Amino acid sequence: MTQSFEGKTITCRAAVAWEAAKPLTIEEIQVEPPRAGEVRVKVTHSSICHSDAYTLSGKDYAYRFPMILGHETSGIVESVGEGVTKVKPGDRVIPLYMAECGMCPLCLSGKTNLCGALLKTQAMGIMPDGSSRFSCRGETIYHFMGISGFSEYTVLSQFSVSKVDDDAPLDKVCLIGCCIPTGYGAATRIANVKKGSSCAIFGCGALGLSVIQGAKAAGAGKIIAVDINSAKFDQAKHFGATHCVNPLETPDVKIEQVLKELTDGGLDYTFDTSGGNIEVMKSALEALNNDDSTCVIISLADAGNVLSTNTTSLVGRKLTGCAFGGVKGSELNDYVKLYKEDKLLIDEYITKNINIDEINDGFDDLKHGRSVREVIFM
Amino acid sequence: MTQSFEGKTITCRAAVAWEAAKPLTIEEIQVEPPRAGEVRVKVTHSSICHSDAYTLSGKDYAYRFPMILGHETSGIVESVGEGVTKVKPGDRVIPLYMAECGMCPLCLSGKTNLCGALLKTQAMGIMPDGSSRFSCRGETIYHFMGISGFSEYTVLSQFSVSKVDDDAPLDKVCLIGCCIPTGYGAATRIANVKKGSSCAIFGCGALGLSVIQGAKAAGAGKIIAVDINSAKFDQAKHFGATHCVNPLETPDVKIEQVLKELTDGGLDYTFDTSGGNIEVMKSALEALNNDDSTCVIISLADAGNVLSTNTTSLVGRKLTGCAFGGVKGSELNDYVKLYKEDKLLIDEYITKNINIDEINDGFDDLKHGRSVREVIFM
Repeated sequence: MTQSFEGKTITCRAAVAWEAAKPLTIEEIQVEPPRAGEVRVKVTHSSICHSDAYTLSGKDYAYRFPMILGHETSGIVESVGEGVTKVKPGDRVIPLYMAECGMCPLCLSGKTNLCGALLKTQAMGIMPDGSSRFSCRGETIYHFMGISGFSEYTVLSQFSVSKVDDDAPLDKVCLIGCCIPTGYGAATRIANVKKGSSCAIFGCGALGLSVIQGAKAAGAGKIIAVDINSAKFDQAKHFGATHCVNPLETPDVKIEQVLKELTDGGLDYTFDTSGGNIEVMKSALEALNNDDSTCVIISLADAGNVLSTNTTSLVGRKLTGCAFGGVKGSELNDYVKLYKEDKLLIDEYITKNINIDEINDGFDDLKHGRSVREVIFM
Repeated sequence: MTQSFEGKTITCRAAVAWEAAKPLTIEEIQVEPPRAGEVRVKVTHSSICHSDAYTLSGKDYAYRFPMILGHETSGIVESVGEGVTKVKPGDRVIPLYMAECGMCPLCLSGKTNLCGALLKTQAMGIMPDGSSRFSCRGETIYHFMGISGFSEYTVLSQFSVSKVDDDAPLDKVCLIGCCIPTGYGAATRIANVKKGSSCAIFGCGALGLSVIQGAKAAGAGKIIAVDINSAKFDQAKHFGATHCVNPLETPDVKIEQVLKELTDGGLDYTFDTSGGNIEVMKSALEALNNDDSTCVIISLADAGNVLSTNTTSLVGRKLTGCAFGGVKGSELNDYVKLYKEDKLLIDEYITKNINIDEINDGFDDLKHGRSVREVIFM
């Protein structure tokens, strides 16, 4: 059980991003109590994801500095605001960057995991009522992805938390807050990979490894990992890759040609986890066969960068994107259970555990490919 | 029964396209007997489609002049070559621009209507053995789409014909050779339109009207026809459109915004039949909701024109293309039966019947929007 500060403002430590492309600084900040429909969470763990780095770079125009980054997070509910029914103090939760209100037309459609409830305010770094719960030396600090996991305490909409088992290992399941369902679900939900089919995954970072896990779970016959860093291939094979291809080893042949030869004419499914590389996305589309195949763009491109395709490349193929792998927040405990049953790898993503004071080194390690995930013990 | 010239070269009339962007001329041509696996057909009717006009314009670099255009065709088998089992002399047939060999991996996959058997030679204007069956004054004349329906006789691979009922009305069912399945199937097969859903069809030509028929048959609740020519809306409504929108009537508002307001946030399905207009394709994609929606690009863009999209526009959406609406050649008689049961409109597409000497006027009428389809009585 976590200590309760119900109704009181908490002073705690957080890593604050004051401006774009500058290191974070560790600050004492104030975290207001949750308002109606809100939840205050004692963050126990947050891992560092490329989306945090992308927003810190300043290329993501939606969010406002200063802000508290972090969205691959786990924690324990400290107190709840009026009318909160979804969780209670002491519950273990994984925050959701894709909220689930359960009431909007999208939530009720049964066809998607997208939720319309918080889209506008979340992308502006504010709570649904238009204000922030964070301040530092009197200055407003903005939220990030409705989560702000790089603070010892944070406030979220109750739609942005998913309750998990009381024995969920919080130092591991923070990864279920982003990379694992995003990749795994892209394979099992969005592409709906069929048994015996062929898949190629472009990029072997945390997202790519998660696609590989999902494709393996779905029974894919051929799982081809593609990366320009062959050092990642041992891990890709451990996660389920049956073949590994480094495009740099065949500089005179397009990677889509190499893959077509490996698969007798093209893949059933391809996945882009390149982190927004338009050329990689094009290769992923072109590497498909024309037999009702699917290319899933998982990583989003930089604002302004657009994916172009000759329309003939779409014949017999589907091109699609997704958010959080098509997985609903209420399904996250299924992943916790898979982990507990040894059917889902998590430990293998974690390069090391660090504390909040080492967060800038953690960003550096991720940027330079020295880590898959570093988990911050808050 | 049609007269047989088995084993003999036939001299007959055909409309020859000698060079790009020039009128066709009516010529006496020689049509060789069918070789092994080939079928010679007495063409009874061919309608004029925009694809014929596109290739005649010279923008389609694949085909070679001089050639005989025409691919929306019907006829009667005159004679067959060695080893032909699929049809016999006297059979009524609709030629197939998307062949069906029944033996290639694509034909056997059960997931697509694409067939790999003839792709290479067909696009080069030659028969599978690498030669042409047409000549005029000693000069080789090339085939088009494996069909060349603007000739009184033509030779096709047996994979490129579909047998239909002996009482199939040949002056109508030629439209089942292209526009009807291409649009109808795009709705019922490729998009798999669900009952009660919302659809927008960009373009109300023969292809758009066929999508509308398909969407209606699938039980769509809202069928919005979009065209810059409001004169087409009465016909669109007759085919099943529930709403009609002319983007020129709201010059200050993007058409995707107009459609989103009409549908409370966006469409479940959109279809581009613009004839290769990239801006229209983008609008079709942007007019979708994010609730697992689908945009089908039916018309192909000019070679070199590419469709560009921000990758965020793909989240919760599928972008796909198709050929012949995902319909297999062996299914064409189903459309003939629907017509005979008054469940499929065909007569309403036909603006007028003409003879082969009027073919250039027919192309002009199509180009200037004065016709939906003109059927040539060969």
